[in-house]
Amino acid sequence: MKIAVMGAGAVGCYYGAMLARAGHDVTLIGRPAHVDAVNRDGLLLEFGGAQQYIEMNASSDASAIAGAGLVLFCVKSTDTNDAGAQIKPFLAPDTIVMSLQNGVDNAERLSAVIGLPVIPTVVYVATSMEGPGHVKHHGRGELVIGTSPQSEKVAQTLRPAHIPVEISENAEGALWAKMILNCAYNALSAISQMPYGALVQGEGIWDVMRNAVDECLTVAKGCGVTVPGDVWGAIKKIAETMPGQYSSTAQDLARGKTSEIDFLNGYIVRKGAELGIPTPTNLALHAMTKLRERRE
Amino acid sequence: MKIAVMGAGAVGCYYGAMLARAGHDVTLIGRPAHVDAVNRDGLLLEFGGAQQYIEMNASSDASAIAGAGLVLFCVKSTDTNDAGAQIKPFLAPDTIVMSLQNGVDNAERLSAVIGLPVIPTVVYVATSMEGPGHVKHHGRGELVIGTSPQSEKVAQTLRPAHIPVEISENAEGALWAKMILNCAYNALSAISQMPYGALVQGEGIWDVMRNAVDECLTVAKGCGVTVPGDVWGAIKKIAETMPGQYSSTAQDLARGKTSEIDFLNGYIVRKGAELGIPTPTNLALHAMTKLRERRE
Repeated sequence: MKIAVMGAGAVGCYYGAMLARAGHDVTLIGRPAHVDAVNRDGLLLEFGGAQQYIEMNASSDASAIAGAGLVLFCVKSTDTNDAGAQIKPFLAPDTIVMSLQNGVDNAERLSAVIGLPVIPTVVYVATSMEGPGHVKHHGRGELVIGTSPQSEKVAQTLRPAHIPVEISENAEGALWAKMILNCAYNALSAISQMPYGALVQGEGIWDVMRNAVDECLTVAKGCGVTVPGDVWGAIKKIAETMPGQYSSTAQDLARGKTSEIDFLNGYIVRKGAELGIPTPTNLALHAMTKLRERRE
Repeated sequence: MKIAVMGAGAVGCYYGAMLARAGHDVTLIGRPAHVDAVNRDGLLLEFGGAQQYIEMNASSDASAIAGAGLVLFCVKSTDTNDAGAQIKPFLAPDTIVMSLQNGVDNAERLSAVIGLPVIPTVVYVATSMEGPGHVKHHGRGELVIGTSPQSEKVAQTLRPAHIPVEISENAEGALWAKMILNCAYNALSAISQMPYGALVQGEGIWDVMRNAVDECLTVAKGCGVTVPGDVWGAIKKIAETMPGQYSSTAQDLARGKTSEIDFLNGYIVRKGAELGIPTPTNLALHAMTKLRERRE
């Protein structure tokens, strides 16, 4: 089965590399700098201290996904609508589309654009782009995917490529849990340009995070979502296990890029307004991140 | 009557200069750089386009206030307790002490330290230090002072020196109104390092300011304080009339100084906690300002 990966960021490149390494026919769609490097040398995957060049097709033109049986949609939340419109003409009615993105509404938004079902997928992996066509794996790699008629087939395709997959009745709740974690850390790390360990030593920062999380959980409840696990416990743990980590939002702002904050704290603010739930902490975090985003 | 000014910042230098210019015997207590300049050349006052050197006594030793009949206490809120302890040994039982400071609890804190009544004073002036012993007047200059047995005498001393003075039954409310304005602007301008005009164009910033102000007004009510005037109207106006202004907190952080934020948004957070009133917006603004203060 031909597999296409839309979006050549750290997530798309990693899963594309894992699938190509397992023998799949993979096509990566991304920006010219990455595409050129991959077409010239293959995709460079760093994994567990080893480096490996992996051959795959790459193109900066969305038409290259034509004929794909499975599409891994890996663009930023800010690009979902545009990228969805780009791939739409090249999808077949039975193409399986998965959204491997942050935020909780990408699968729904993408589905509305392409007119096909989209499997919401929660990604638990730490990877980074080290240069054009060069992705580095730092840890984990498992996916939690929503239930659908194709989910079992997807799991059977991905698992042999060393991609652990869990099919969950509550993938939406898992997406929310991940987003809430991002709502706690991303804006604060971005506004202060501090890593998590130093951040949480700031006076009152745990209280701000707790308020942000409580607002998120209230909004989730208002949306009818059951958030699984001990979200607050997981959040407290991250500062200990990843003290040197800067949030993706902090990294985006430092590089002058548009962040995903509109789909993290900004999403909570919008949903809260719809539901009549006050979200003052998420509002303040979102507004200050946007100020900084505009300034950079 | 000998008048002493404790604190040679822009407020203390301005009022000290106005009083010395009117013929009063003024002694300024401040840091050596300012004191040396004043003792060498006099205090340089820029006012309405004109420059004038004004002779006065200056010392970096608090003992120089001995014999003063009136003390203008003009240090930052962070220094109230220390500076109060410094001047205490040199105050007479009938020395009139005025607190010309931001924040709402300085008069009370100072009074507790020196064991004398302190007249709370709301300062409406725009001034800046342009260099050692060099103060520039940008606008206004009036004082609102609390009622006390000495208030009429104080007003009669200051008014002939072109210092408009109003004696108010609700000076505390006026101090709160000024502090609430600072709670709306100071942290946001500091965190973003933006002037007011650009700041309020940020997405959601008016909503954040509105939330901060509503929390402050609720805490004021819980403290039994009636805040006079249309605080929100005044806040909206400032962005139009002072678009290029950076908050004092923004200036303090840019210069690596400790800000007064603990006595602005931080005060609201503490009082809110005492009274059981939620203050999530002030908490977030305070915490993020403290992060930046620590980093600078």
